Amino acid sequence: MSPHRVQALADGVFAIAMTVLVLGIQVPEGGGAADLRARLWALGPRLASYVLSFVMLGVLWIGHHYQFHYIRRTDRALLWLNLVFLLAITFLPFSTGVLGNYFREPLAVVLYGSTVVLAGICLLLHWIYASHDGRFVPPGLDSGLVRLLRLRIIVGLALSVIAIGLGAVDTRLSLVVFLAIPVVYFIRSRVDRHLTDLHPGGS
Amino acid sequence: MSPHRVQALADGVFAIAMTVLVLGIQVPEGGGAADLRARLWALGPRLASYVLSFVMLGVLWIGHHYQFHYIRRTDRALLWLNLVFLLAITFLPFSTGVLGNYFREPLAVVLYGSTVVLAGICLLLHWIYASHDGRFVPPGLDSGLVRLLRLRIIVGLALSVIAIGLGAVDTRLSLVVFLAIPVVYFIRSRVDRHLTDLHPGGS
Amino acid sequence: MSPHRVQALADGVFAIAMTVLVLGIQVPEGGGAADLRARLWALGPRLASYVLSFVMLGVLWIGHHYQFHYIRRTDRALLWLNLVFLLAITFLPFSTGVLGNYFREPLAVVLYGSTVVLAGICLLLHWIYASHDGRFVPPGLDSGLVRLLRLRIIVGLALSVIAIGLGAVDTRLSLVVFLAIPVVYFIRSRVDRHLTDLHPGGS
Amino acid sequence: MSPHRVQALADGVFAIAMTVLVLGIQVPEGGGAADLRARLWALGPRLASYVLSFVMLGVLWIGHHYQFHYIRRTDRALLWLNLVFLLAITFLPFSTGVLGNYFREPLAVVLYGSTVVLAGICLLLHWIYASHDGRFVPPGLDSGLVRLLRLRIIVGLALSVIAIGLGAVDTRLSLVVFLAIPVVYFIRSRVDRHLTDLHPGGS
Repeated sequence: MSPHRVQALADGVFAIAMTVLVLGIQVPEGGGAADLRARLWALGPRLASYVLSFVMLGVLWIGHHYQFHYIRRTDRALLWLNLVFLLAITFLPFSTGVLGNYFREPLAVVLYGSTVVLAGICLLLHWIYASHDGRFVPPGLDSGLVRLLRLRIIVGLALSVIAIGLGAVDTRLSLVVFLAIPVVYFIRSRVDRHLTDLHPGGS
Repeated sequence: MSPHRVQALADGVFAIAMTVLVLGIQVPEGGGAADLRARLWALGPRLASYVLSFVMLGVLWIGHHYQFHYIRRTDRALLWLNLVFLLAITFLPFSTGVLGNYFREPLAVVLYGSTVVLAGICLLLHWIYASHDGRFVPPGLDSGLVRLLRLRIIVGLALSVIAIGLGAVDTRLSLVVFLAIPVVYFIRSRVDRHLTDLHPGGS
Repeated sequence: MSPHRVQALADGVFAIAMTVLVLGIQVPEGGGAADLRARLWALGPRLASYVLSFVMLGVLWIGHHYQFHYIRRTDRALLWLNLVFLLAITFLPFSTGVLGNYFREPLAVVLYGSTVVLAGICLLLHWIYASHDGRFVPPGLDSGLVRLLRLRIIVGLALSVIAIGLGAVDTRLSLVVFLAIPVVYFIRSRVDRHLTDLHPGGS
Repeated sequence: MSPHRVQALADGVFAIAMTVLVLGIQVPEGGGAADLRARLWALGPRLASYVLSFVMLGVLWIGHHYQFHYIRRTDRALLWLNLVFLLAITFLPFSTGVLGNYFREPLAVVLYGSTVVLAGICLLLHWIYASHDGRFVPPGLDSGLVRLLRLRIIVGLALSVIAIGLGAVDTRLSLVVFLAIPVVYFIRSRVDRHLTDLHPGGS
């Protein structure tokens, strides 16, 4: 079973989830310049949670992308792990809407964080299943790299759990930690060096 | 006529239908923590029907995916069978919304079940047409496998018809049967072993 | 300039337009079984125009698909012809909504028909531009086939113009003619035989 | 890291953003022929801003398309530049909605123009990063062409900044300049000749 269509479905779901995030934000209507300014200002928390979720989807998409750089085949179990992963992705616009409307409520943080955690757990299981005993990855793939890809997901999961926990103290702390997650993934790591070393000249 | 773009269109429709399911669920707004809890709780039936439909779409997508693993070409008739299949897929978000709002009404179960049955019948006809006399499948494809793929769709269809019928007794029974459908497809079968045997080492 | 991404963009737009058609139909809410029946019944014209537009999109997608079976390259002019074609496609859900709400008004038929005509004209110009003097098609492509593909689009355009005109008499006549358009394209023609002859064994 | 999936994600986001533009336009409902005419007429500014944004998305998509004609690989930095570019693309339907509702307010022009400028800046940085020292482009790529692609983006950016500035005088002037941007990109340039020269016969 070639992984090509799994990637096509995932790319489609990510593309739509990213675009749909903004649909939840009602376009202001009526009134003059002063009203427009006030209404855009009032949309602040929703716009912020849209940007946060877009970046979070970016992190998850890149994670998915990197895994499939190594995964050569899929089977029924991996297809279903992918589908549960995509279930979490399609749910994120809803969680984002709730967070944008109730960003001071710990419950909204729990809902949002749980969606991210579910996606992360699926991504982790996906990689463990595919790479275990070299099941679907190329023979001789560096085991340090396998571990590093695993570790990178666990770091994001740990930060998400911390963010959820901090919501009980102050939801603004949660948001700061959520925002820190993408920053961790901006940093180039040994994974990137590995990819660059593999393909120094062309694709 | 290469089947590549048919798959691209189908992947797009599935990706959107999966993501759009959640758009039908209104994000709660206003009020405090207690209100949020009550409102999320009230969304229970809609969230449940979203998860049910997502999984159902997953089953149908995997079925489509498996068929195209063997189908090498398409013609006008197969394109139109595909389009009617996709018509049912695009209608599922509407049926799901009706089911979420009226999960105690047999009529909602009939509407939902009919959508699933229509998709299943198209998938069945699609496979029969493509595999008949080896029309579009590789020569020498195991006829047991052709029959097995056919049988697997018929099982799902039979369960859907039973679910619709049980709606006349109690719609909760219908939902239990609908939920059982994906479980049947989680199980690895001879189809999976066939695919694994074909490609033991790479894609 | 390879035509691959043009097809990917077009497949995406078609997939979304097809799925979005149903989003315009409000899911009924509240009331019991009798209300649900009445509300579904009242949605009749909207459901009918959704099915009509889905099939119309199918016809247009197949037309696009067939052209790109022969088109090997694109240039800036062809990219823009494609984009105007896709503009008409993205507008169809709006025209469909208007037709569903005002199916007895000639103006709604004019709006709907004009959208279909615009898409058809773009598809015709697209083919004329790409096939003229063998610009982007394989050398030695049967000129009878080039003419046939052109003629098939003109037939659809002529029927759409007739449908718009009949709206001045009775909009139900228009709908009958619109429904007849896909039927014309269901029929296998020399285009299909040509494709089958070209690829008798594999893709 | 192959650029294939980046293009797939981008094509998906563009396809959805293009289709979603029209979803923001409420389908009129109720009343007779006179009402329909009046309601469609009242939608004029929204329809105009939908067409403007569709064409703007077309320009940006073609720009992205041309770059990836030369870009052979990606890395983490380029993926994130792409994602910020796509963030601007997903935001355009919102900005378009605001412009359609407040086309006489300078603030709406600033919001709309800033979205276009953000997309343009990302596209410019994307090309500078990918082409600098021949990082991800084929060795020996004509440096005049690299400069020309850069210059073409800068022209669009300059026009967008002028359009924003003119909003302080009269927002209608801004709209004229925004409409002029695509016209600039309709014109065939040395980029097109280069592509045609490279591939005189086939893809």
